[in-house]
Amino acid sequence: MQDALIQTLRDDAHALAQLGWLLATSGNLSARLSDSTFLITASGKHKGALTADDFLVCDLDGQPTHPTPHKPSAETALHCAIYARIPEARAVYHVHDPFAALVSQRDVAAGATAWRDVEMVKALGFWEQDAQVLLPILPNPAHIPALAQHVVDYLDHRRAPDHAPGVNILRHGVYAWGDTPFAARRHVEALGYLCRYSWELGRGA
Amino acid sequence: MQDALIQTLRDDAHALAQLGWLLATSGNLSARLSDSTFLITASGKHKGALTADDFLVCDLDGQPTHPTPHKPSAETALHCAIYARIPEARAVYHVHDPFAALVSQRDVAAGATAWRDVEMVKALGFWEQDAQVLLPILPNPAHIPALAQHVVDYLDHRRAPDHAPGVNILRHGVYAWGDTPFAARRHVEALGYLCRYSWELGRGA
Amino acid sequence: MQDALIQTLRDDAHALAQLGWLLATSGNLSARLSDSTFLITASGKHKGALTADDFLVCDLDGQPTHPTPHKPSAETALHCAIYARIPEARAVYHVHDPFAALVSQRDVAAGATAWRDVEMVKALGFWEQDAQVLLPILPNPAHIPALAQHVVDYLDHRRAPDHAPGVNILRHGVYAWGDTPFAARRHVEALGYLCRYSWELGRGA
Amino acid sequence: MQDALIQTLRDDAHALAQLGWLLATSGNLSARLSDSTFLITASGKHKGALTADDFLVCDLDGQPTHPTPHKPSAETALHCAIYARIPEARAVYHVHDPFAALVSQRDVAAGATAWRDVEMVKALGFWEQDAQVLLPILPNPAHIPALAQHVVDYLDHRRAPDHAPGVNILRHGVYAWGDTPFAARRHVEALGYLCRYSWELGRGA
Repeated sequence: MQDALIQTLRDDAHALAQLGWLLATSGNLSARLSDSTFLITASGKHKGALTADDFLVCDLDGQPTHPTPHKPSAETALHCAIYARIPEARAVYHVHDPFAALVSQRDVAAGATAWRDVEMVKALGFWEQDAQVLLPILPNPAHIPALAQHVVDYLDHRRAPDHAPGVNILRHGVYAWGDTPFAARRHVEALGYLCRYSWELGRGA
Repeated sequence: MQDALIQTLRDDAHALAQLGWLLATSGNLSARLSDSTFLITASGKHKGALTADDFLVCDLDGQPTHPTPHKPSAETALHCAIYARIPEARAVYHVHDPFAALVSQRDVAAGATAWRDVEMVKALGFWEQDAQVLLPILPNPAHIPALAQHVVDYLDHRRAPDHAPGVNILRHGVYAWGDTPFAARRHVEALGYLCRYSWELGRGA
Repeated sequence: MQDALIQTLRDDAHALAQLGWLLATSGNLSARLSDSTFLITASGKHKGALTADDFLVCDLDGQPTHPTPHKPSAETALHCAIYARIPEARAVYHVHDPFAALVSQRDVAAGATAWRDVEMVKALGFWEQDAQVLLPILPNPAHIPALAQHVVDYLDHRRAPDHAPGVNILRHGVYAWGDTPFAARRHVEALGYLCRYSWELGRGA
Repeated sequence: MQDALIQTLRDDAHALAQLGWLLATSGNLSARLSDSTFLITASGKHKGALTADDFLVCDLDGQPTHPTPHKPSAETALHCAIYARIPEARAVYHVHDPFAALVSQRDVAAGATAWRDVEMVKALGFWEQDAQVLLPILPNPAHIPALAQHVVDYLDHRRAPDHAPGVNILRHGVYAWGDTPFAARRHVEALGYLCRYSWELGRGA
């Protein structure tokens, strides 16, 4: 099972790198192995050319479950926060799409970027007429435990039914989750499309 | 014949996905097998990596003609509407090009996006000097039968000689058809180029 | 020799298609075989997936030199015009880069797009300090002989030392030539970069 | 060792070419072999399709260390300047990213482009909260020794702790270095992302 999962993460990372969303070793992808463990990309690898060895297994405290030469991604704590609070999340994909960073900067005072009645929100699971979907924007402290705490606070207290299955970290990038790796990829791609649409529309007005 | 057609649809879907027009499992491609049946991509697949099994055969009511594990695309009714009303249409390609969505939002009050004297309209079959070509914009109700009815009404009552072989669904994407899969791909690519040209031009003025 | 030349044109067409400059079967590539004959892509093929059979040999009147199932590109007359007037041109590449069309529309009254002191003009053969390079803009009549005549008139009467080895056809695309296929590709890529730079700069001012 | 290094440079050049940053034979990549020698791409090759033969070895005066049919890149002197002054630099990558040229033109009076609190600066080695990072802009005289002298003067006299490991040459492109080829690629990709972010943000304000 783990080999197939690694292959899926490698294929998805390659596809997302082709979109220019994983430049400069940025981004990280993970998938849950059990209630308390998950696979995650090792720190510092270029995500467009991952090998089967560029992964490790962590527990929900972000500690490797086995001896490994790899360091977990610096942002493993955000994956832990999401897995611990969203039981149905079985994969978390984080990318550095430049348009997500641009809309986060533009919309930071509002606290979220919103879309109404754009077809692509269906890929996020919103199928109703006139659906409005919000992508919340969270602060980006350099201290990772503080950043993870923002995610925890958001998931515990502010997450609402019209929110996308993801968060946009200020001037940083998007985290999206899903109940499969396939769904996490669909969500992160939909959010990339929507952020670009929103940014271009804001300039064309 | 069906195997070769599936291969063509897979190759074309892969090429259109490389352009970023089929993100997040969006889009669907179909090709007519007979007057009353057509092949179509199954619902929920990522169009950049279709396998030969990711297709099914439907009749013009959108019902699978054989038992199949697959669900037809949610938008199969739009393919049916086009095949039923345009006998020469033998393939229908639907993509989520972000620039098509942007111009639909910008031009919705006018009801169409127009190009005059842009060379690329020749790829849509307009060869005369000073040709003006319109891409009609149709509403996008979430209820698919209502959406299909808009396509039917347009094709029955409003389609005109200076209209492109396609429609732009509001904040959604383009449907284009052709008398071969090759022509459908040419049309959808030409419309993508033209929508981007129109959007950029509108901002640069 | 002809087989190697076909392979070069196929590889170059594939690379230019990856840039999005040959959508919807647009564009055409040719290379001289002798003083009076040249290889050219057949009409109506998708340039991103040319086979070795998708070429034919024409004379400088644009007539096939041998029986062939193919039609020469509709724009063969422009290739003839260039080969007849520029003896050192041994390849002519024509692409539909959207930014070339955008700057042609913006700069049509001036008759040319100009760059001064942009490093990429070196790829066009301009190495001096403060070099200014012009890309002339020519009209785009639908009647191909009239279009070819504009190219002839330009080459016979208006071409100047500070002009790029190419022309920009209004709302259409660029023709560039070189003394090898390698040089024609370098010129067409440099002009694509420069058109995008110019378009973006004009909007950002 | 040299064969593996050539393979790394070829792979990295291919990846950077896919991003559109090495059009028209532009750009050059090098990696140090010893304190006084380095491998560099030969002049005039298309960087998207380098062969193992498209490299040569130079000393820090830019002279080939062995007889070779190749000319070193015209800009070898800039690689020499960087290797001579930054002992820890073991690879230098130079690309023609159009957004780097655009921000250089916009920000030339300020002398640098700056980012504050954008996550991607971590890929350049800046990890502190509120980090500001500057990318200096240097003049682009056509005379290469004069251009190299600007790099020397910058490295000797103006380089500061909050400067990126790279320079942006006016209307030309970015040079970035690193203590491995992997780091040089990470730096050049991060700077490409940041230049695009800055350019888009400046237009969207």
